[in-house]
Amino acid sequence: MGTGSNATPLLPKIDSPADLRQLKVEQLPQVCSEIRDFLIQSLSKNAGHFASGMGAVELTVALHYVFNTPYDRIVWDVGHQAYGHKILTGRREAFSGNRKMGGISGFPNPKESPYDTFSAGHASNSISAALGMAIASKLNHDSPRRNIVAVIGDASISGGLAFEGINNAANTPNNLLIILNDNDMSIDRNVGSLNSHLAHLTTSKAYNNARYKAYKLLKKLHLVSDKSRGPILRFNNSLKALLSREQNIFEGLNIRYFGPFDGHDVEKIVRVLNDIKDLEGPRILHLRTVKGKGYAPAEKNPSIWHAPGKFNPETGECEAAKIPDKNDPLKYQEVFGLCLKELMECDKKIVAVTAAMPSGTSVSIAQKEFPERVFDVGISEGHAVTFAGGMAKDGLHPFVAIYSSFLQRGYDNIINDVALQKLPVTFCIDRAGLVGEDGPTHHGAFDMAYLRAVPSLTVAAASDADTLMRLMLTGAELDGPMAIRYPRGKSDACSADISLSDKSALPVGKGRIICEGSHTAVITIGTVLADAGKAVEQARADGKEPGLYDMLFIKPLDTELLDSIMDRYERIITVEDGTLKGGLGSAVAEYMARRQDKKNPQLTMLGLPDKFITQGTPAELKELAKIDSTAIYKAITEV
Amino acid sequence: MGTGSNATPLLPKIDSPADLRQLKVEQLPQVCSEIRDFLIQSLSKNAGHFASGMGAVELTVALHYVFNTPYDRIVWDVGHQAYGHKILTGRREAFSGNRKMGGISGFPNPKESPYDTFSAGHASNSISAALGMAIASKLNHDSPRRNIVAVIGDASISGGLAFEGINNAANTPNNLLIILNDNDMSIDRNVGSLNSHLAHLTTSKAYNNARYKAYKLLKKLHLVSDKSRGPILRFNNSLKALLSREQNIFEGLNIRYFGPFDGHDVEKIVRVLNDIKDLEGPRILHLRTVKGKGYAPAEKNPSIWHAPGKFNPETGECEAAKIPDKNDPLKYQEVFGLCLKELMECDKKIVAVTAAMPSGTSVSIAQKEFPERVFDVGISEGHAVTFAGGMAKDGLHPFVAIYSSFLQRGYDNIINDVALQKLPVTFCIDRAGLVGEDGPTHHGAFDMAYLRAVPSLTVAAASDADTLMRLMLTGAELDGPMAIRYPRGKSDACSADISLSDKSALPVGKGRIICEGSHTAVITIGTVLADAGKAVEQARADGKEPGLYDMLFIKPLDTELLDSIMDRYERIITVEDGTLKGGLGSAVAEYMARRQDKKNPQLTMLGLPDKFITQGTPAELKELAKIDSTAIYKAITEV
Repeated sequence: MGTGSNATPLLPKIDSPADLRQLKVEQLPQVCSEIRDFLIQSLSKNAGHFASGMGAVELTVALHYVFNTPYDRIVWDVGHQAYGHKILTGRREAFSGNRKMGGISGFPNPKESPYDTFSAGHASNSISAALGMAIASKLNHDSPRRNIVAVIGDASISGGLAFEGINNAANTPNNLLIILNDNDMSIDRNVGSLNSHLAHLTTSKAYNNARYKAYKLLKKLHLVSDKSRGPILRFNNSLKALLSREQNIFEGLNIRYFGPFDGHDVEKIVRVLNDIKDLEGPRILHLRTVKGKGYAPAEKNPSIWHAPGKFNPETGECEAAKIPDKNDPLKYQEVFGLCLKELMECDKKIVAVTAAMPSGTSVSIAQKEFPERVFDVGISEGHAVTFAGGMAKDGLHPFVAIYSSFLQRGYDNIINDVALQKLPVTFCIDRAGLVGEDGPTHHGAFDMAYLRAVPSLTVAAASDADTLMRLMLTGAELDGPMAIRYPRGKSDACSADISLSDKSALPVGKGRIICEGSHTAVITIGTVLADAGKAVEQARADGKEPGLYDMLFIKPLDTELLDSIMDRYERIITVEDGTLKGGLGSAVAEYMARRQDKKNPQLTMLGLPDKFITQGTPAELKELAKIDSTAIYKAITEV
Repeated sequence: MGTGSNATPLLPKIDSPADLRQLKVEQLPQVCSEIRDFLIQSLSKNAGHFASGMGAVELTVALHYVFNTPYDRIVWDVGHQAYGHKILTGRREAFSGNRKMGGISGFPNPKESPYDTFSAGHASNSISAALGMAIASKLNHDSPRRNIVAVIGDASISGGLAFEGINNAANTPNNLLIILNDNDMSIDRNVGSLNSHLAHLTTSKAYNNARYKAYKLLKKLHLVSDKSRGPILRFNNSLKALLSREQNIFEGLNIRYFGPFDGHDVEKIVRVLNDIKDLEGPRILHLRTVKGKGYAPAEKNPSIWHAPGKFNPETGECEAAKIPDKNDPLKYQEVFGLCLKELMECDKKIVAVTAAMPSGTSVSIAQKEFPERVFDVGISEGHAVTFAGGMAKDGLHPFVAIYSSFLQRGYDNIINDVALQKLPVTFCIDRAGLVGEDGPTHHGAFDMAYLRAVPSLTVAAASDADTLMRLMLTGAELDGPMAIRYPRGKSDACSADISLSDKSALPVGKGRIICEGSHTAVITIGTVLADAGKAVEQARADGKEPGLYDMLFIKPLDTELLDSIMDRYERIITVEDGTLKGGLGSAVAEYMARRQDKKNPQLTMLGLPDKFITQGTPAELKELAKIDSTAIYKAITEV
């Protein structure tokens, strides 16, 4: 750790990759070391993703050293690994604003820098996007040749989208270079067969090294050409015939494979990249890296150090590892995880599915107790949903816990593989609403709109820890599909509050009256209820008498409750932390249209506007979207 | 062709697989032959999918002969191949109602029969669903062992969902048997690297055969055990070391591979299935089949014979192959295809992407002219969208033609890889609205609801051939993402009408007045305009004076036009062929809520109700959904 010498610091003079390219290759290890120090110092104070970026330092330095960025394109898959990239591409100073409102994004963001070639919030998209760029470069007749590099982790590459990209890349003439940053980890430890396969490739290192050396020799002797596909292919085939009986899935798919190499030997990576960068045809370079590399606590516990929160760089104490006090409020995720475990204790039919997020969703709590009934299927949301459909078809009742924005990848599966067949699958939609610092790719903004259109599906939202628990009971009892959305972050319950034994299921499609009033009724869905409660209280203090109602279900809609509200009040204000288009306000407006000959109150809809919401703290973002208690109060009191 | 003998027919006595299992294995070829004759006779009169079913006859017979269905589960991937299955499982008589309203479904449908284990309208879901069933069987402690078989085509297996399923299947303890029905074709000829790989496996037949024989010998000598994983694995590895330097992607993923075998040798398939059915662990059996097998015209031209329409069994003349008259109305698909070609002639930046549907979408028209600028990426809708995003990022303007219901698989990609980055991609949403005989899995019911919530996206619908052409010009001119929906089937234009040179782009977000009126305004989106036109005409004949308006854009909404309508009329009727929840009516209701202090007319919304719509002719289905001219007329004239 540390530059470990009296050498003049190099990083302060690197304001762009062009500066980096002025250095000698022997100086690169020092640059790497300084980037690590920078990351440790910066992220200890301003929390962010840590371990992925630390593991990709040498890779990042080598890429910008060898390739002519931004003319050459680097497409990062998921931004966690791209912090070093940001620091090297003119954002060293700006890095203190990482993930803050108005600051730089925690993910690559094309609006921010020409070096950020593509948005990268959701895993597995880099190969597809990079292939598109490679094709564009060809059709645009770019000269000199523009190199396109996709950098993808071993977890991301197991997603179906990445496979579709690889399958197409192997089949279309292009010069794409895929770098597999293989740290044998996703956020949680990696699962899936492809990962076993990658591990196996590593054990066949001797073979691959021999092959690479032979290739270099043949090239030196001008026995293979880099400029055309044919000879290289022959070289690959014949060498394979000579040297190996190993299987390689990539070469099975006709993509030339190089590796595995040590992803922390920056000089070696530079050499290899220089050797293979001008080859024709799609290639994969496999680098073995260590998540958290260079910071012992992170190397030791990379799951916690994926996003450690603030930490003490000297001691390695971090927020994420803190053992919470018994009286601390639990996260909604913990409420969910504990209840899931309790449900599974009572009902053998209940199983759980998650897609690479057992810790994030707290499915891990039940997993410890029931390892055979909890399935982490890796980054594959579509499969997670259909797999659950298959289990439900044969008598089980799966609870599928996926983040709202990632569930967008399972939309077709929800429609055809679950709802159409009315199968008992309970979708537990984590991180619904505004997630905060992860920004636009991660906000759970669309779920109410896209799920409300799906027939046979019950769609509910927890407004607090108690309703989350009761809705889980509802889901477990329901012989059909149901979705329950709940947000990221702290709930109003502590561990002593968590028990299902004294609780009953909430009836499907029934909202509840929080308080009756006159003139104006506030109708909420989800945890915005608390903000609305504050606003109503404040308005009551001012002498107004607004009523407050919690719909709980956006589908089926409690039309009986709505009728009573619409008959009673002159004005309705709906509040939701999802898109206005297609959400609760929209459902209420639709219902008003159906009350043709009855009196309809005036309707004001508060919710997410028709634009992508930026990053910031949840409080800042609620204010921005005008769904905080101030905005609700204002809506109640405006004439 | 034909039973070719005087043998007593067997098929009439097979009312369930139990009857089939009474036969001797030597009688199975005759059963196969009779099924083929039945399919030819039946489908020549009552159009349906033809070539896939013909190719899967032996496979189907062998599966029901060897496995104890429905206790054992067969999960078909896409229903096209499952016609023989329907005939053998008690639906021989019902087959004349195939794809008709009230008749049996053209796809496996669990509501229809216990032998139909899972809904199978969208490709690539069988492995995931079957794995779910395999896990359920294990957790349910089913005794005797329940065998689960997924039958997947070579086109479907290249979808990302199938890969996710394989990856998970290889990693989770289960006894899933995957049958790869490899006819080297999807609806159009297959693309992608995995398919090259499959072809390669076929050429390594000698090796695989040797391996299979050696396995049988070792088993006979009790040198390998079927009951545990270990020895088998060792057997596989050592034999590989002895016999082969071949690569096999499945074994790379740790799934035992058997094949390729002749998929038309029913007795051989029965033997192989009996040999491998009780093995432990996931297995793949690779069968080579011929699409259209047993009917020469279909074998010769399987693309046309995928869904040939009615045909003459003697001559092989079929509806799908008919050369249309110059004055015949073109399909919307042809209007789109011809215009796309014209756009690509004028603008080099325009490229086209489709996902395994070049003929279905008519992208093939442009493909012939510009093979280097048209990309058929195979069954991989998510990749298609992200790949287009990558091309758009670097200066191209992709037109992405995908069926509405399949585009559900690209939802997350549309949001994050296109709309968030405001990239110029034009989505050409084919088969929007009610598609007819393919039924609930294929109706384009949800696109307006799920796309309307996406910021930065312009969403339009063609109301006739002319507006389709003009909207394509709009899309091409727009420096941002846009979706254009249009239906399956005949348009109002013939080939002489197709030219862009005399046409101008439609302005974004502007609707149009078809005719002004009084009291009631009918507002439409899409080709329901024609039905609304008839209804308005009829109402006018009755002395009413309804107005008629075509919104063209559901987003952005023409609020200026809406204001003028809302100010003028007492009543508004919205008409759309998409879900009421979240669609045009919903958008109009939302807008009314925003017109707080202005007069709002009464609103009646016609559109698809909140349930899955069955199969039938488009006319029958419009009537059922109450969006035909009769229903619109009724809405206009009701008090």
